[in-house]
Amino acid sequence: MESTLEFFTSRRSTRKYKTEAVPEEKLHQIVEAGRFAPSGGNCQSTHFIVIKNKEILTELAELVQQEFAKMEITPGLYKSIVNSINLSKSGNYVFHYNAPVLIVTANQKDYGNNIADCSCALENMMLMTNALDLGSCWINQLKWLNENPVILEYMKKLGMDDTERVYGALAVGYPDTADGLPERKPLQRTGNKVTVVDL
Amino acid sequence: MESTLEFFTSRRSTRKYKTEAVPEEKLHQIVEAGRFAPSGGNCQSTHFIVIKNKEILTELAELVQQEFAKMEITPGLYKSIVNSINLSKSGNYVFHYNAPVLIVTANQKDYGNNIADCSCALENMMLMTNALDLGSCWINQLKWLNENPVILEYMKKLGMDDTERVYGALAVGYPDTADGLPERKPLQRTGNKVTVVDL
Repeated sequence: MESTLEFFTSRRSTRKYKTEAVPEEKLHQIVEAGRFAPSGGNCQSTHFIVIKNKEILTELAELVQQEFAKMEITPGLYKSIVNSINLSKSGNYVFHYNAPVLIVTANQKDYGNNIADCSCALENMMLMTNALDLGSCWINQLKWLNENPVILEYMKKLGMDDTERVYGALAVGYPDTADGLPERKPLQRTGNKVTVVDL
Repeated sequence: MESTLEFFTSRRSTRKYKTEAVPEEKLHQIVEAGRFAPSGGNCQSTHFIVIKNKEILTELAELVQQEFAKMEITPGLYKSIVNSINLSKSGNYVFHYNAPVLIVTANQKDYGNNIADCSCALENMMLMTNALDLGSCWINQLKWLNENPVILEYMKKLGMDDTERVYGALAVGYPDTADGLPERKPLQRTGNKVTVVDL
């Protein structure tokens, strides 16, 4: 990285992955970066469920598609959920983009900072994947289905506790690009209003 | 930083600050790091309200103390909120630790990723303050009071939109330590369960 700021500004989402496995040492560093994210009162209750097994990933994608396909599109529903439902009804939906690794972040369901803590962990892991020239993408589908009984049961089978719920996930892998590196095209940044109070 | 991982593992919360102002160039880099955090569908709706004015910071701290002091402690209330209420009732509560800068992150109240997006921005800004050898601390009090009419009105006066709410904030400044650097003592990390699914 040429500058520290580039560490942040060069990160992009990757939605197409090679099948190549992520080396253990790199995956370890990614999860460690996540584990060192801050937590409310330093409670460290974020639970990282690292899924690398191809059959499990396939089964999970099928269940997610099955459950979204049952859902109806209601007025005002968030556009990305609408998209997940429509793609699932068409029967061609793989929510994790066939990435070789999915890192699910769960936390206590009755803890007020559960989303915030998981988000900080996910952000750390995204930055670390980028620093390692790996690709990643924030995955919200398991959060949207985090009270769905089928998905909940499956997550418990994978080691999630009864008191935990999913608040986000991360697809990780080698980007399927010509040079094998994450696409880092310039990003148009017209949003994110900044108000400076310095009267 | 000796390694990329250290970029994450060396971050600590700073709760005692020098009065010294944060140089404009450093503050700019911190906010830029926050602005480049990912957002749902790349909507970039996180609004950064950067407060550097001493009178405003004092007034805000007094209002927060006043509003917490009115609150009752109910069974099951989160321990840090209980702490804020108790300290406020005792009349000696400055929620932002007298840091010279407070960066408030607001977002659309009816947007499902508001907490997640603000959290990613806050995490980026925490990492950037650490890389610049500045101190920072996640501040939740304005989020806890984000529907309180007095605080809401005050935040609107500072430029927050009617449709926005506060989902987190960051105190930033030079740590008041012997060497002026953030305290980076070893962190005991016994939490953050990691489950690896690789059958």
